[in-house]
Amino acid sequence: RKRCAALAEHSTFTTIIIILIIFNAVLIGLETYTSIYNRYTDWFVFLDQLLLWLFTIEIMIRLIGSSSLKSFFSEPWNIFDFVIVASGHLFVGGHYVTVLRILRVLRVLRAISIIPSLRKMVNALLMTIPSMGTIMLLLGIFFYIYGVIGTTLFKSIAPEYFGTLHDSLLSLFQVVTLESWASGVMRPILAEDPTAWWFFVTFILIGTFVIFNLFVGVVVTNVEE
Amino acid sequence: RKRCAALAEHSTFTTIIIILIIFNAVLIGLETYTSIYNRYTDWFVFLDQLLLWLFTIEIMIRLIGSSSLKSFFSEPWNIFDFVIVASGHLFVGGHYVTVLRILRVLRVLRAISIIPSLRKMVNALLMTIPSMGTIMLLLGIFFYIYGVIGTTLFKSIAPEYFGTLHDSLLSLFQVVTLESWASGVMRPILAEDPTAWWFFVTFILIGTFVIFNLFVGVVVTNVEE
Amino acid sequence: RKRCAALAEHSTFTTIIIILIIFNAVLIGLETYTSIYNRYTDWFVFLDQLLLWLFTIEIMIRLIGSSSLKSFFSEPWNIFDFVIVASGHLFVGGHYVTVLRILRVLRVLRAISIIPSLRKMVNALLMTIPSMGTIMLLLGIFFYIYGVIGTTLFKSIAPEYFGTLHDSLLSLFQVVTLESWASGVMRPILAEDPTAWWFFVTFILIGTFVIFNLFVGVVVTNVEE
Amino acid sequence: RKRCAALAEHSTFTTIIIILIIFNAVLIGLETYTSIYNRYTDWFVFLDQLLLWLFTIEIMIRLIGSSSLKSFFSEPWNIFDFVIVASGHLFVGGHYVTVLRILRVLRVLRAISIIPSLRKMVNALLMTIPSMGTIMLLLGIFFYIYGVIGTTLFKSIAPEYFGTLHDSLLSLFQVVTLESWASGVMRPILAEDPTAWWFFVTFILIGTFVIFNLFVGVVVTNVEE
Ligand code: NA
Ligand code: NA
Repeated sequence: RKRCAALAEHSTFTTIIIILIIFNAVLIGLETYTSIYNRYTDWFVFLDQLLLWLFTIEIMIRLIGSSSLKSFFSEPWNIFDFVIVASGHLFVGGHYVTVLRILRVLRVLRAISIIPSLRKMVNALLMTIPSMGTIMLLLGIFFYIYGVIGTTLFKSIAPEYFGTLHDSLLSLFQVVTLESWASGVMRPILAEDPTAWWFFVTFILIGTFVIFNLFVGVVVTNVEE
Repeated sequence: RKRCAALAEHSTFTTIIIILIIFNAVLIGLETYTSIYNRYTDWFVFLDQLLLWLFTIEIMIRLIGSSSLKSFFSEPWNIFDFVIVASGHLFVGGHYVTVLRILRVLRVLRAISIIPSLRKMVNALLMTIPSMGTIMLLLGIFFYIYGVIGTTLFKSIAPEYFGTLHDSLLSLFQVVTLESWASGVMRPILAEDPTAWWFFVTFILIGTFVIFNLFVGVVVTNVEE
Repeated sequence: RKRCAALAEHSTFTTIIIILIIFNAVLIGLETYTSIYNRYTDWFVFLDQLLLWLFTIEIMIRLIGSSSLKSFFSEPWNIFDFVIVASGHLFVGGHYVTVLRILRVLRVLRAISIIPSLRKMVNALLMTIPSMGTIMLLLGIFFYIYGVIGTTLFKSIAPEYFGTLHDSLLSLFQVVTLESWASGVMRPILAEDPTAWWFFVTFILIGTFVIFNLFVGVVVTNVEE
Repeated sequence: RKRCAALAEHSTFTTIIIILIIFNAVLIGLETYTSIYNRYTDWFVFLDQLLLWLFTIEIMIRLIGSSSLKSFFSEPWNIFDFVIVASGHLFVGGHYVTVLRILRVLRVLRAISIIPSLRKMVNALLMTIPSMGTIMLLLGIFFYIYGVIGTTLFKSIAPEYFGTLHDSLLSLFQVVTLESWASGVMRPILAEDPTAWWFFVTFILIGTFVIFNLFVGVVVTNVEE
């Protein structure tokens, strides 16, 4: 156990894992080019399996090296590493090809759990989320109300944007990012219903105001720490 | 009276109301799907009436429970709750279907008046509005002047954007959100009047500068509190 | 002289001027509706002349009321008021109709010089401009260099965007506001010259970074005061 | 050597160089107008050579004036000046016309190394870059993962946006600037694959959140200094 612990904490061990992750990332990137993938399919499959087993060994070493199973899984990043690697073994087989591919890409995320500065930064970013809880709820209520009103009013005028409640919510997300809200969404509706402008103008005014305040809250939280 | 006051302040009472509001929200959401609504119309009508009466009883209990009518209506959120529920009774009947539907959606807003943390946050958001009074007036003057100039200059070139003063104001709102301001609004005008660029460039420079300062003011106000 | 000074500082005097400016603004707004203007042309012309003379009298009273010509014109807002009103007399005649109309709209700006809170705010906004001098120069150099490069590279591929240096500068302004920079400007160019992406990506990265820092500078300046 | 040092530090010397740079900038701007360039080609070529030699003499004087070669090249701005001017001599000849033209434009950048306030500001801007190192790495990983997923999922549906990994990365940059992300990129894909919305919505939410935090970091860094 002590040997594993010493090995897991050794800087060379971390460096090797980082190099493997980078190599894995390059491999995954090259795989997306079908001409390259088709020529070297066997190599890609072999290297992918090799990397999966190397990562499995790495997790095993760190698992054995930790004082107890409980202490290992009490660190969320360890659970993250474990799930990413374990899922690589679970979904083997002809089916779930897309799921497997996306899971393989997520192995690149392990760079975050391995590199201390990235880990610290992501922890800091995740820490700002709870402070946004109430304003997220408020945004949710706000979107839901405008979604229902939008669907009620524009269902038949613009079915591609406001045909159903979930279509409306996606369109409202588009509107709040100010993407083609006038040229694409509002003006065609305005041609049928000339009073529709209040819906979009009030939504944008309230939406950007609330989101802006959400951001100010995050700034204040960050600056204080 | 004392019983009503005790009941209104009981946490179970608040929890029940929150559940009713969520149930109401889900119901309103489902109603927007015409296939579901057409199959269970009777149920929707019945549950909607039931919820309206339950909310009426809730308001009654809180109204009776308060020390006086005056003290009840001195709290703006109580007026808000009262108006939302009362209007549900007023607009009954075949007409005003759209108005009634929108009012029914606004009942979801009651979540804000019931959940303390949301209430506090919305109060804080509303509090920042007075500090923006003067800059809003400035923005209004700025929009009005550019609206009149835009209508005068581009009325005949681009009637869909600058045909009337109110069309112009809507187009200027579109321009200040930077939505298709060049591809959709300016470039077609530029083809007819090659000097029109100064109108849009100065409008965007001044507009974003003033709005940015408005936001800075809000930040400073928020951070100081 | 003392009477004029007393009159000019009287709050009723200011109130009357504000009402006249609002009335003037409404009038100018109504004029943009051709159907209304054509029916009441005589009234519009008469009221416009009346307002011009009332404003002239106002400036005269304040001019006479001030201790000296020099002290009157040492206040920039007085020069502004004087120029706005004087120009109304200068451009009378059949020609320069558009110039005259725009000048008439600018009279609405006099609301800023009359209402103290607006005046204070605009002074504060103008005060932040000098602190942006150096970064504006930097932005100017940055735009000029990219303008020349853009014209050199894309002159023949996209003449509507990069045909001449001034076209390029306008297109770069469009790109820095992120308006249709990809769908409208870059992708059609990319179809001809697949290496053109570096021009747009670096321009946006540097441009938004410099502008963002310009804004941070303004925030810091504002917060410190 | 002392004479050169005295000359290089003389304010008239700097003023002359600034004037030459401005003159050079105007010349480069005029050159982009083909009609003007074709009429005065000889003059442009002559003046360009003259300016190149004047700048060469300037660098020589400053080089000789400095205490040692090492001290001269220890200042990065001096290296910058030297490279800009030296490359003007290197690429002479019929070939590399575009490279030469872009290098000639970069001479305008020398305004930054000459004017102290600009130099100070650019130094300050460059200083904020290291503090963004970790978050840039995070953004890189985030873009890479979404790039691979996007290519895997949408390669055949939208080859113009997600055909190859590098196309995907450019499209993701477009999406993160919110430019036509819905109207141009997502909605055509949604028509084929109705579940594709999660890819774009999560990318925008995470991307803007991380970039916003990057900016907050820069603000905090700047304000502290
Ligand atoms: Na946009
Ligand atoms: Na757009």
